[in-house]
Amino acid sequence: MAEEKAKATTTTTTSPIRFGIVGCAEIARKVSRAIALAPNATLVAVGSRSPDKARRFIAENALSSSVRAVGSYEELLDDPAVDAVYMPLPTSLHARWAVAAAERGKHLLLEKPAALSAAELDPILAACAAHGVQFMDSTMWIHNPRTAHMRGLLSDPSRFGDLKMINSIFSFYADEDFLKNDIRVKPDLDALGALGDAGWYCIRSSLWAADYQLPKTATAFRNPVLNDAGVILSCGATLLWEDGKIAIFHCSFLSHLTMDLTVIGTRGSLHVNDFIIPYEEKSAEFSFASDSGFTELVTGWQPLPSKHVVTTELPQEALMVQEFSRLVAGIRDSGNKPEEKWPTITRKTQLVIDAVKASIDKGFEPVEIVG
Amino acid sequence: MAEEKAKATTTTTTSPIRFGIVGCAEIARKVSRAIALAPNATLVAVGSRSPDKARRFIAENALSSSVRAVGSYEELLDDPAVDAVYMPLPTSLHARWAVAAAERGKHLLLEKPAALSAAELDPILAACAAHGVQFMDSTMWIHNPRTAHMRGLLSDPSRFGDLKMINSIFSFYADEDFLKNDIRVKPDLDALGALGDAGWYCIRSSLWAADYQLPKTATAFRNPVLNDAGVILSCGATLLWEDGKIAIFHCSFLSHLTMDLTVIGTRGSLHVNDFIIPYEEKSAEFSFASDSGFTELVTGWQPLPSKHVVTTELPQEALMVQEFSRLVAGIRDSGNKPEEKWPTITRKTQLVIDAVKASIDKGFEPVEIVG
Repeated sequence: MAEEKAKATTTTTTSPIRFGIVGCAEIARKVSRAIALAPNATLVAVGSRSPDKARRFIAENALSSSVRAVGSYEELLDDPAVDAVYMPLPTSLHARWAVAAAERGKHLLLEKPAALSAAELDPILAACAAHGVQFMDSTMWIHNPRTAHMRGLLSDPSRFGDLKMINSIFSFYADEDFLKNDIRVKPDLDALGALGDAGWYCIRSSLWAADYQLPKTATAFRNPVLNDAGVILSCGATLLWEDGKIAIFHCSFLSHLTMDLTVIGTRGSLHVNDFIIPYEEKSAEFSFASDSGFTELVTGWQPLPSKHVVTTELPQEALMVQEFSRLVAGIRDSGNKPEEKWPTITRKTQLVIDAVKASIDKGFEPVEIVG
Repeated sequence: MAEEKAKATTTTTTSPIRFGIVGCAEIARKVSRAIALAPNATLVAVGSRSPDKARRFIAENALSSSVRAVGSYEELLDDPAVDAVYMPLPTSLHARWAVAAAERGKHLLLEKPAALSAAELDPILAACAAHGVQFMDSTMWIHNPRTAHMRGLLSDPSRFGDLKMINSIFSFYADEDFLKNDIRVKPDLDALGALGDAGWYCIRSSLWAADYQLPKTATAFRNPVLNDAGVILSCGATLLWEDGKIAIFHCSFLSHLTMDLTVIGTRGSLHVNDFIIPYEEKSAEFSFASDSGFTELVTGWQPLPSKHVVTTELPQEALMVQEFSRLVAGIRDSGNKPEEKWPTITRKTQLVIDAVKASIDKGFEPVEIVG
């Protein structure tokens, strides 16, 4: 594969982190390629409840012949040749299998939503801490170099000023099959529905823009759409911080594909329309305006917003695997402690999801968020 | 002036509509130029409470020497040589002077917000109807040809599907002088503050996207910012329609210049970042995506949104004057009836503003909108 060739030319100081994939979800295809692309990672095993399914996954994705198909999650977690696992299981199974992975000393790259609630997440994070393994949720856009560029501008008081509002939307139009059969509409699998899936990104981006300061309250909009089983297909909310700043988000399985993030300060504003999955893999844009006003007769803007293009050799999901593997290598080979940042921002995301869910359940009243 | 030369080469079938401007507000500078640019309009008089101020306005804006300076609003309204007035007075004065204009048979191009409430607007509209004069509020972007292009796409079920959500933001960062002295922060002049000024555009755009169907309720966000006199400096709300679609808007004097409109249907989405005042006068962009999905491994979009550029010979404010004058000429010269569309959409905008204001006053409860 082209990916393997590229990897062969990269010098790594330690041996690559050996990954096992726990569960052959569709998203695992993308992440298996990301593991192949990351210079400090290698895929050694794919685990499924059926060995056939694991074998088929390996064949269909043209993975290296050295990747082993494993017929049970336990067997994969018990394998001493596996350093870390990527776990794209349905969320309802995280509580069991993520804890099991941590207890066997496996570093954990966990698909989002990390858990069905903060209460369910805490034992996972506790197990990771107790066993000294790195935890990271699989939110890819955070690792795109565009994100760091945007962060730099938002953190510059002379160009952005003080943060006032964050607006985010993630929607896609799910077809009939999805709305009937996808795990994200099933109360026993991904009971958080669109809030846990699409809303996760909106909430994470709001926290990111606010430098991960927790909002004080969440208040859901009065038009959530639920399916017959009570799973959220569409909803939105406002998040309010102590200082008056606001985040507004909307997430949905029922509207055309949209991935907007707008961040407005006193002196600047940032727009990106593909913040979760960039339009193209190797190049991502955003626009930024600073101290914009009007022309003399208010017939145009000056200065105009500027377009920023950030290129990347590796796609964001490979950069995620690379960063996770770098941290794992530090623990495995140099006795480092796990990086606290990642479980911390996962937990904050989950706390806000809990509050939005509670606001929907309580008739759209504001719900306090306690850290 | 270049504008006059351009006009001289335009063939008009009827004599131009003769405008008087009632009040020398800053925005009147832009509209006086628009009247000069519109091929079927001509400015004949500028009225102010002081003749000096009217003279200074004429001189400073290099208006034609034939434009008369008039030292009182009454005198201008009594002038038989004036067909129509543009009225950029503080909103608290509209009730008196807009009615006075209609009673004297002057067609009325009224600066927004049209009134402080629907209850205050109704006598204005009634006076216009009773005297057979055309009413139009001075919302310029509606007249940009870009708006018609966007409307065409939103109305195409095969490209846009069913409307699901509208997201709009209009904010600008007001300086200290504005926050102290501008009429838009004074309870006795423009008591609706940012809601009447910036919010007007968000609400109008939401109605426009929904084909002017009134929402059922408005629910304000819980973080309005008011000044010491109780005037709104920043607020937001959701509007909900019977069928579940939602409009979300945020308007503010306290955040960097932002003019976003996003409209999402089941099959398409539209983005524009300068919907009220385009970045440039003669060319305006928007982006539109239809049936977008992901590449096979979910590492990019396909198809990508397409960028649309719409050019215009005349700026949108001149197109507004031209359209208003066309309707007035039809009444004056051909015995047409006033076009009902314009007062109707003004009233709907005002009804929604009333509901948002009431929701703020009632502790952020949903407020019903009755047409």
